[in-house]
Amino acid sequence: MSKDTNNTDSENYQKKKQFFDQLLTVYGRNPVFEALQDKNNQAYRLHLADSNRQAKVIDDIVKLAKKRDAEIVYHSRQELSRISKNAKQDQGVAVDLVCKGYQDYKTFLQNNQGRELDIIALDRITNPQNLGMIIRSVCAGAIDGLLLPRKGCAKLDPLVIKASAGTLFRAPILRCDTLTDALQDFQQHNFRIYGLSSHADTTISSIPQQGSSVFVLGNETEGVSQSVADCCDHQVSIPMRNQVESLNVAVTASLLAFRKVMV
Amino acid sequence: MSKDTNNTDSENYQKKKQFFDQLLTVYGRNPVFEALQDKNNQAYRLHLADSNRQAKVIDDIVKLAKKRDAEIVYHSRQELSRISKNAKQDQGVAVDLVCKGYQDYKTFLQNNQGRELDIIALDRITNPQNLGMIIRSVCAGAIDGLLLPRKGCAKLDPLVIKASAGTLFRAPILRCDTLTDALQDFQQHNFRIYGLSSHADTTISSIPQQGSSVFVLGNETEGVSQSVADCCDHQVSIPMRNQVESLNVAVTASLLAFRKVMV
Repeated sequence: MSKDTNNTDSENYQKKKQFFDQLLTVYGRNPVFEALQDKNNQAYRLHLADSNRQAKVIDDIVKLAKKRDAEIVYHSRQELSRISKNAKQDQGVAVDLVCKGYQDYKTFLQNNQGRELDIIALDRITNPQNLGMIIRSVCAGAIDGLLLPRKGCAKLDPLVIKASAGTLFRAPILRCDTLTDALQDFQQHNFRIYGLSSHADTTISSIPQQGSSVFVLGNETEGVSQSVADCCDHQVSIPMRNQVESLNVAVTASLLAFRKVMV
Repeated sequence: MSKDTNNTDSENYQKKKQFFDQLLTVYGRNPVFEALQDKNNQAYRLHLADSNRQAKVIDDIVKLAKKRDAEIVYHSRQELSRISKNAKQDQGVAVDLVCKGYQDYKTFLQNNQGRELDIIALDRITNPQNLGMIIRSVCAGAIDGLLLPRKGCAKLDPLVIKASAGTLFRAPILRCDTLTDALQDFQQHNFRIYGLSSHADTTISSIPQQGSSVFVLGNETEGVSQSVADCCDHQVSIPMRNQVESLNVAVTASLLAFRKVMV
């Protein structure tokens, strides 16, 4: 095989990988129906279990999928649950959406070199309501990416989609395998890494407005875990009155997302 | 009766009124237990239904109430539900807490003349989760009062207390009967009244930092009602990216509460 062919193969592979990285699988009849109704959403493939009984909502889903030029594929019940990864809630229906903002963080870093960026990273946010609200605020605010580890946080399930008010499909979500590895990569790309902690003496208003930053938000009860805190350059707090001990994590994310918008 | 006696009577009445305005009645066994556990909370009276059966949690509540020097009063089941105003959830227990921040807005206006103040006002916030989160952020942020009408918003029930992370008892909550009347009073005290609306052309960053302001937040679905909007001097929006149509109302309240803190 010549060198050229090799390059083209590798390029094709990269393109394919980037495309599949952008696919977000939504399951459950109502969530799939609503996702297909939103004209902003590009649907790639609709998956149906061949065990599904005749139902109006399934007919409506198929009609919408055709309108959106999605491929329609039938599977055994078992195959479908491998696709949805949630046999209990998929109700025999799943759809792969092409989400422009949804990508691997490495692709994002590659495509945004030299830009000044603000990122929010999540460490074990387990409440779907909180995760959905964070996604909504990040999508609306002045944040360039939400770094979301594949494990440890709430799954991107129908509850999260609902709490995100449908913004999940266009939010800039950067997936990573482990947060500590990803944070080190960001550090090497000249990002400053800030761990949010209500105990920190340094307050958010004292950090520089210039340069690229990652703000790390930790678990609702325990905060940022030790291994992740070790990757942070600084711990920072948001000053609070009246001896309030902490803010809701979705509120904290929103304050960060809008800190340059409100002034 | 001499003029002096009249004055003293009137002063006594005012003092009594102010004291009783500060009482917040919490009901339900766990909420009462938790409220009494917090040493920051001053308890005035513990109310118990004489129909309550022997239970460890009741004994613990009585012990804590004695420790906090609260008067303990027994009532018929019916009388107790008149006190709790929630027979279904009171579980035969209620406590009146003295909340320093909790008062009638008129008292607040009287006591804060000449100061520059930021107020958040709520118009029909019906979701207890949202109301609790708003109270938590207002209590922690740079807001001098949360103007809360007695009708139309979620009741200050155990769900709200929980969502407020217990901050309800020290949050600056200003009660009013009708929001429109109260807003006109604030206007006469030289406050500018801003209605938050995602459709407004004027953005939050363009309003003056000086002077006293009331920010009005409307219902989760319908926004600020017409009669309340008519009382506002300006409609303002928070700019959003990615065609996001609105923010969660508790997030909006938090952004307002921390807008002078984050910079």
